[in-house]
Amino acid sequence: PDPLQVGGVSLHSRLFLGTARYPAPSVLAEAVQAAQVEVLTVSLRRLAPESQSGQAWWQRIREMGRHLLPNTAGCHSAEEAITVAQMAREIFGTHWIKLEVIGDDYTLQPDPWGTVAAAQTLVREGFAVFAYTTDDLVTALKLRDVGVAAIMPWAAPIGTGAGPRNLPALRTLRERLPDSVLVVDAGIGTPHHAAQVMELGYDAVLVNTAVAEAGDPVAMARAFTLSVQAGRLAHRALPMRTREVAQASTPMVGVPFWHQGS
Amino acid sequence: PDPLQVGGVSLHSRLFLGTARYPAPSVLAEAVQAAQVEVLTVSLRRLAPESQSGQAWWQRIREMGRHLLPNTAGCHSAEEAITVAQMAREIFGTHWIKLEVIGDDYTLQPDPWGTVAAAQTLVREGFAVFAYTTDDLVTALKLRDVGVAAIMPWAAPIGTGAGPRNLPALRTLRERLPDSVLVVDAGIGTPHHAAQVMELGYDAVLVNTAVAEAGDPVAMARAFTLSVQAGRLAHRALPMRTREVAQASTPMVGVPFWHQGS
Amino acid sequence: PDPLQVGGVSLHSRLFLGTARYPAPSVLAEAVQAAQVEVLTVSLRRLAPESQSGQAWWQRIREMGRHLLPNTAGCHSAEEAITVAQMAREIFGTHWIKLEVIGDDYTLQPDPWGTVAAAQTLVREGFAVFAYTTDDLVTALKLRDVGVAAIMPWAAPIGTGAGPRNLPALRTLRERLPDSVLVVDAGIGTPHHAAQVMELGYDAVLVNTAVAEAGDPVAMARAFTLSVQAGRLAHRALPMRTREVAQASTPMVGVPFWHQGS
Amino acid sequence: PDPLQVGGVSLHSRLFLGTARYPAPSVLAEAVQAAQVEVLTVSLRRLAPESQSGQAWWQRIREMGRHLLPNTAGCHSAEEAITVAQMAREIFGTHWIKLEVIGDDYTLQPDPWGTVAAAQTLVREGFAVFAYTTDDLVTALKLRDVGVAAIMPWAAPIGTGAGPRNLPALRTLRERLPDSVLVVDAGIGTPHHAAQVMELGYDAVLVNTAVAEAGDPVAMARAFTLSVQAGRLAHRALPMRTREVAQASTPMVGVPFWHQGS
Repeated sequence: PDPLQVGGVSLHSRLFLGTARYPAPSVLAEAVQAAQVEVLTVSLRRLAPESQSGQAWWQRIREMGRHLLPNTAGCHSAEEAITVAQMAREIFGTHWIKLEVIGDDYTLQPDPWGTVAAAQTLVREGFAVFAYTTDDLVTALKLRDVGVAAIMPWAAPIGTGAGPRNLPALRTLRERLPDSVLVVDAGIGTPHHAAQVMELGYDAVLVNTAVAEAGDPVAMARAFTLSVQAGRLAHRALPMRTREVAQASTPMVGVPFWHQGS
Repeated sequence: PDPLQVGGVSLHSRLFLGTARYPAPSVLAEAVQAAQVEVLTVSLRRLAPESQSGQAWWQRIREMGRHLLPNTAGCHSAEEAITVAQMAREIFGTHWIKLEVIGDDYTLQPDPWGTVAAAQTLVREGFAVFAYTTDDLVTALKLRDVGVAAIMPWAAPIGTGAGPRNLPALRTLRERLPDSVLVVDAGIGTPHHAAQVMELGYDAVLVNTAVAEAGDPVAMARAFTLSVQAGRLAHRALPMRTREVAQASTPMVGVPFWHQGS
Repeated sequence: PDPLQVGGVSLHSRLFLGTARYPAPSVLAEAVQAAQVEVLTVSLRRLAPESQSGQAWWQRIREMGRHLLPNTAGCHSAEEAITVAQMAREIFGTHWIKLEVIGDDYTLQPDPWGTVAAAQTLVREGFAVFAYTTDDLVTALKLRDVGVAAIMPWAAPIGTGAGPRNLPALRTLRERLPDSVLVVDAGIGTPHHAAQVMELGYDAVLVNTAVAEAGDPVAMARAFTLSVQAGRLAHRALPMRTREVAQASTPMVGVPFWHQGS
Repeated sequence: PDPLQVGGVSLHSRLFLGTARYPAPSVLAEAVQAAQVEVLTVSLRRLAPESQSGQAWWQRIREMGRHLLPNTAGCHSAEEAITVAQMAREIFGTHWIKLEVIGDDYTLQPDPWGTVAAAQTLVREGFAVFAYTTDDLVTALKLRDVGVAAIMPWAAPIGTGAGPRNLPALRTLRERLPDSVLVVDAGIGTPHHAAQVMELGYDAVLVNTAVAEAGDPVAMARAFTLSVQAGRLAHRALPMRTREVAQASTPMVGVPFWHQGS
C-alpha cells in the first residue's frame, strides 16, 4: 500500500522495464511475469511495418497486458521527437511518451534544449511526458515547470551499467524537486544501484540492459524487483545516521560480569 | 532452494541480525519475525546475573526460536575470548561462537594475532568459529587454514554504517577463498550495501545498528532481507558486463521507418 | 616551455586565481606573487562606486600587473550578464569575460540556456568568453560551436571544495573537445584535486575559496601552483597503465642467489 | 626548511624512489637527478654475484650518491627477511632496511605476523627498519611499539597504480600514530595520489612503477617531486573546510550597484 501515482495511474511496482536486447521474446515475457513489472518501455523502431518479426513482437508485448511507455529513442531534435510521439500515440493507443532527444551520439546523452522544447509542445498536446534527462538541476527545474509527468535523470550513460556516477547530483535533484515524480533511467548495472537511488527517495527505476544482458534475465528481473522494494522500504524507514568513528553495537557499561568475581 | 550450509545447519535466510540497541525487545522480536531471520547474535554481557532485565531479555531471545550466535564482544585478548566462548557454550547451549578479539578501542577493529590464536584453540575445542576480521587477505587465509566455520570481514568500522570502504579488498577475499563461508560483518549502513557485497558473492551479511537505529526497525529489517535476496539472486544470475561507453538499448539498424517514406 | 594559448595571450602559469574572500588584500598580493599567478578573476561587484574600499581594492589589484578576467558573478539571465560584461570591458579595459549565468541560487550552478545565449552575443561583440558551465557534454559542445575562448566546467558546486564529483564526465569532455581550452572552475578543494584534473589533460585550473580560506593562503597558493605543474607534467609524461593485480616492482627471476648455495 | 628526520638523517626530499623496471640505468640516473631524490630503494636480488650486469648496475647506483634503502623483496618469512637484511647491511654498508615479508603471492601483500616478528629482531640488532605493511591499524601499532624507524602502509597492491583504495584507513593511521614516520608505499599511480596522501599528513611517499613505467620517466619523477611538495605544503597550510552546499566566492551583499540606478 505505497502506490506510485504517475501519468494518471496508480502503480504497485516501481521497476520499469525496457524491452530491447533480450535473448528471446519469451525470456522477456517470463521476466515481466516473474518480476511483476507493470510498466514496459517500447520503441516504435521495433514496429517497422515491413518487418514480420516486428508485428509478432508487438503482438507479444500487447499480450503481456502492462502499461506501455513508448519512447522516442534515436530522435535528435525536438521536431523529430514530437513526430514520433504523435505516431506512438496512434499506434500504441496511449498518451504516455518517454521523451528522448539525443544530443550526442557517443554518450547518447539527452539534449537539454531539444528535450525541454519537445516537452513543452507535448505537454500542451495532452501527453504525459516522461522526460529522459541528465542529472542537471537547471534542466530538471525547467522540465518540472513545463509540467512533465516524470523527470528521468540518468545514473550514467545508457548501456554502461556503471551505476550512479554523481550521487550528490542525484541527491540534490531529489531535495530540490520534492513534489515531482523522479525515475532513474539509464546506467543502472546491478540491483544494488537500484536500491541505492531508491534509498535517496527516487520514485522508481527503469532498467533494460542490466536485465536483458544478464546470464539469467528472469532471475535478474526478480532481483531488481526485490532491490527496488528494499530501497523504497529503507527510504521510508529512515536509515541510521552514519558515523565517522566506530561504535560498539553492544554497549559496554562498566566491567563485564565475568570480570566481577576477580 | 539456495540454502547456506554453515556451522552444521542449513539456512534459508542469509541475513544475520544483531540484537543490541533496539528501542525495545518487542521491536526486535517483530523485526526478526518480519524479516524471517534465522540467526541472531547475542552478547554474554547482556546476561549479567545480577541484572533482572538481562534475564527477561534472555528469556525473550530464547522464545524467538532462532539459531543463536553468541559473540565475544568486548574481549581484548585470545585468553579472554576463549573464556567467554566457553561460558557462552554453557549458557546458550551452542557450540557456535562469533569470535571478536578487539585490537583497538577507537576503531574497535579486530586484532589479527589474538583472533587467529583464539580461533585455533576454539576450533580444537569443537567450536564452530565465526571469526570477525578486517578485509586483510593474509589474516583470512590463516583463519581458513585454522578451520573456522565462517570468516567475517568488516565492510567498515562497526557502527559507522559507512558501507564497503575497500570493495577491491572484499572482492579479492571472495576470489581467493572460493570455498569458505564469507559473511560481511560491521559497517553496513543501508540495504544497498548489503546487496552490493552479496553481488560480489558473499554468503551472508550480519547487520545490527543499521536495523536497530532505523526510524522503523521492523521495516528496515524487512528491507535488508529483500536486498540480501536481491544481491544473492543477482550474483547467481551473472550481471551484465559494464561498459566504458554508452550503448543504445534499442539497436539502431539502418534508417528508422518513419524516415523511409520521405 | 609549455605555454597555454588562450584569449590571445600566452601563459606560463596554468593556475588562475580568484580574488575574493581573502583575510586581507595584502595576503592576496603575497599569494599571487608566491604562486606566480598570471590570471586573476575580478568581480565588478567589488567596485561599487560609492565604496571607498572598492576603489582601494581595485587599485591594489591593478598594481599586481596580472591579466584580469572580470566575471559576471551574480547574474541570472543572459541579458544581465551581457550588460555586466560590457561594463566590465569599459572599467577593466579588457575584452576577456568570465561568463557566469546562474540558474539556481542554491547550487549556484550555471544555466545552460542563459550561458549559451549570452556567449553567442558576447563572442559576436568581440569578447574572449571564458564560459563557466557544468560537466554537461552537450552544453560544452554548444559553447565550442559558439566560439568561446575557454570552456570552464565545474568539478563540484562552487565553494564546496568537494573535488571532482564526476570524473568520467570530465574525462569525456576532454576526449570529445580535444581542441578546446578546458579549465576546471569551481569545486576544487585541495591541490591533489587540481593535479587530478590536470592529469586528465585539462589546460588550467581556477581556484579561489581553497586558497582564500586556507589557514595559510600564501603557502596554499604555492601548493596549488606546484600541483598544477605536477599534473601537467604527468599528463605529458604518459602515466603508467593501472593494473587489477599486484606486480612486483623487483622482477623475480629464478631462485634468489642467497638460496643458490644450498 | 621542513626536513624529514628518519633513520638518523635529515631529508629535504619526501619522495623515495624505487630503482627497478626502468628502461635503462641512465634513465634512472637522470630521473633521480631531475627529481632531487635523496632515498633510493635497492634490491639485493639485483646484485647476484654471477651477474655482470648486477655489478655494473650496483656501481651506477653507488655513483648517484643517495641514501640507499635496501629491501627484502621476495622474502616470505621472518627468517628469510632477517638473513637478507643482514646480508644487505654488509653489502650496502647501511643499517637501513626496507622490510618486506610477503604473505600472499597474488596480492604481494605483507604478512603481518612475519613482518612484526622480523621487525622485532632487526630493531634489536640495530637496524633502522622501514616496515612495509597494509593499512591495518593494529599491525601498525605493533610496529610502532617494536620501534621501527618508519611505518610504510600500502595505498593499493604493489604495481597496480590504483591509488588509495581505503582513504579513511590511511587517515586513521595518521591520526592514531601522530609521532611515527609514515610513508605510503605501493599502489601510487599518478602524482595526484601522492599529493592526496601528503595532504593527509603522511611524511613521505615511495614510488617505483609509476615513474619507471611512465612514457617519460624523468618528467614523471619531477612531477612526483612537485606533487609531494604540493601535498606537504597544503597539509601545513591547513586546507579549507569542505561544504555540502554551494557558496558564492564573491559574497552577494545587497543589490549590485548596476541595479541601483534603476
